[in-house]
Amino acid sequence: MAGTEFGPEVYRQRCERATVAAREAGLAALVLTPGPDLAYLSGYTPPADTERLTALVLTADAAPTLVVPALERPAAELAPAARSGPDGLSFVDFTDGVDPYRLLADLLPAAGRLGVSDSAWALHLLGLQRTVPELRWAGLSEALPMLRAVKEPAELARLAAAGAAADATYEQILGVRFAGRRERDVAADLAAGLRAHGHEQVDFTIVGSGPNGASPHHEPTDRVIAEGDTVVLDFGGLRDGYGSDTTRTVHVGEPGAEVREVHEVVRAAQQAAFDAVAPGVPCEYLDEVARRVIAEAGYAEHFIHRTGHGIGTTTHEPPYLVTGEKQPLVPGMCFSIEPGIYLPGRFGVRIEDIVTVTESGGRRFNDTSRALQVVR
Amino acid sequence: MAGTEFGPEVYRQRCERATVAAREAGLAALVLTPGPDLAYLSGYTPPADTERLTALVLTADAAPTLVVPALERPAAELAPAARSGPDGLSFVDFTDGVDPYRLLADLLPAAGRLGVSDSAWALHLLGLQRTVPELRWAGLSEALPMLRAVKEPAELARLAAAGAAADATYEQILGVRFAGRRERDVAADLAAGLRAHGHEQVDFTIVGSGPNGASPHHEPTDRVIAEGDTVVLDFGGLRDGYGSDTTRTVHVGEPGAEVREVHEVVRAAQQAAFDAVAPGVPCEYLDEVARRVIAEAGYAEHFIHRTGHGIGTTTHEPPYLVTGEKQPLVPGMCFSIEPGIYLPGRFGVRIEDIVTVTESGGRRFNDTSRALQVVR
Repeated sequence: MAGTEFGPEVYRQRCERATVAAREAGLAALVLTPGPDLAYLSGYTPPADTERLTALVLTADAAPTLVVPALERPAAELAPAARSGPDGLSFVDFTDGVDPYRLLADLLPAAGRLGVSDSAWALHLLGLQRTVPELRWAGLSEALPMLRAVKEPAELARLAAAGAAADATYEQILGVRFAGRRERDVAADLAAGLRAHGHEQVDFTIVGSGPNGASPHHEPTDRVIAEGDTVVLDFGGLRDGYGSDTTRTVHVGEPGAEVREVHEVVRAAQQAAFDAVAPGVPCEYLDEVARRVIAEAGYAEHFIHRTGHGIGTTTHEPPYLVTGEKQPLVPGMCFSIEPGIYLPGRFGVRIEDIVTVTESGGRRFNDTSRALQVVR
Repeated sequence: MAGTEFGPEVYRQRCERATVAAREAGLAALVLTPGPDLAYLSGYTPPADTERLTALVLTADAAPTLVVPALERPAAELAPAARSGPDGLSFVDFTDGVDPYRLLADLLPAAGRLGVSDSAWALHLLGLQRTVPELRWAGLSEALPMLRAVKEPAELARLAAAGAAADATYEQILGVRFAGRRERDVAADLAAGLRAHGHEQVDFTIVGSGPNGASPHHEPTDRVIAEGDTVVLDFGGLRDGYGSDTTRTVHVGEPGAEVREVHEVVRAAQQAAFDAVAPGVPCEYLDEVARRVIAEAGYAEHFIHRTGHGIGTTTHEPPYLVTGEKQPLVPGMCFSIEPGIYLPGRFGVRIEDIVTVTESGGRRFNDTSRALQVVR
């Protein structure tokens, strides 16, 4: 995770910003557990997320405090946020057998509504609920969804670089042989490409050929790709700590009229949603725009997922482009736009770019051709 | 995760056993989320654990039911537990924008105490608490800690093989050069060794040299190992889906009297705890035995963690060998025995084996020499 570290001042500013945002959202404190929230606010990522509680507490009237197992304190003290001293990050540690929820509760207000990381373990939340039954809890993606959503310039630069690396991987994959090889083999090529272009982590390499393409989260199999197959390629990971995620759909040999038509509908839907990006537009509007194009072409029932998700140090985070999400777009937000059409038992088509919001509209971090490419 | 899959009958039996155990523990239902519980009971591991709810519901009066995002249903239907048909596993799916907690709540009893996977996302637990406020929840490691603790013969065989692979890795590392190389380099050797001996996943490769050895969960650094250093080597991962985890402490060149003494105390503590393994003995007793040996030698304050943790498809799970854990040992349980002494700023010593309980006492899955080995 070295790639995601910034200087101590960055973490101090983020903690201050988060504390203000929490107060404005009516939250008396924030409890951040291992994962993207903790890394964002402290630069600390423990060796593993386990039954031993690790949690950062942010309140209005104390320095950020990390509750940490005694045996991991030396590692935690190396976190970037700790480099500016106890004002930047102070510590409370506990040994095995001590109740960590009591220690954490002592840092919390006695009542009120608190925000907790979405992925905090249920075990830990239940421990806190039992210890301080007066507190009310809300998941951060609901209570403070935009905490990490607006990216700083240095973050935008890393997302742009990750996108460029994914694009270079796609350009290369167009040159490999598809027919006669297994999905798994093409997936391995994608993974190797992402690594060759600087990714330290590969998160997914979906290769959905023929009927497998109709399952959006298909895992690559031993299915041998054949002439005449449509193939959905959806791949990404982390480069320098920030995510890539792009999808293109290719065809092995010359496509027939139906595949061309479905692909063109998805392309038009993706373009329409991209064209609708502007500050102030509600997230759900982009979903509505893409969905309308697909519905008007008669495929409404075959677009079975939301239009997009935010991206940063994770590949799924707010903002979500989904019905009901009223959050207005803000310059610096980054998310996927990825409509698709899935015909069960036959084939699927999806086209996906990562897009950031600028004052003047959308800017793509993926910009390879969105035309239906023919591969061998 | 292919390595962890068994036939559909195994999952059916496990679900039946879990349902009975839940009733006996006063739990009206179990909610299992992605991770070891879900894999154990269904053989299903989704592509990722995300904000989209995936959860298996076990109740006394219905077939096991998996709530799953629509776009992952095709993948879920390939789970081993689904191969015996809807009696083995039935499905409820939802599309983006639909409230999955309502769907899940419809499968639950209207009141009572329920068990939920420790690592279930707080976001999902909060969604369920909001939807059915009458229910009371308990983490499975507290409510049903022994769900996966007693291993089946096929599981014991895999744990033994993982242990043997870790032992082979240790034998090899004794031959490499330590002095003049970075901790990171030796850690890479350990990882390569685990993979060479069949591990598909490396979870940790702790190389704590000199003062770094006094931090039990030290992450390998660029520190250059020198003649005269004590080096803690703690490494493991997954082989064929089951975990390895062993620690030995070595010395670069001839050790002095103090290191020899501390090492001998830890060795004796580890042996004493091992000798105490027998069916019916409470978990905490093994901790007490190891701690007593260390305390009697005057190092009580420097043994800063519990004596051990269970192991199976994860490297940290019940039973825990810790003060307060009254659970009696049962043949088939598997756990680490790993006392240590940590002298801040100077050095650390830890010795760890995975041990299983048999009718006649303990059986080690790690059995390399526990003497203090001298390396170059």
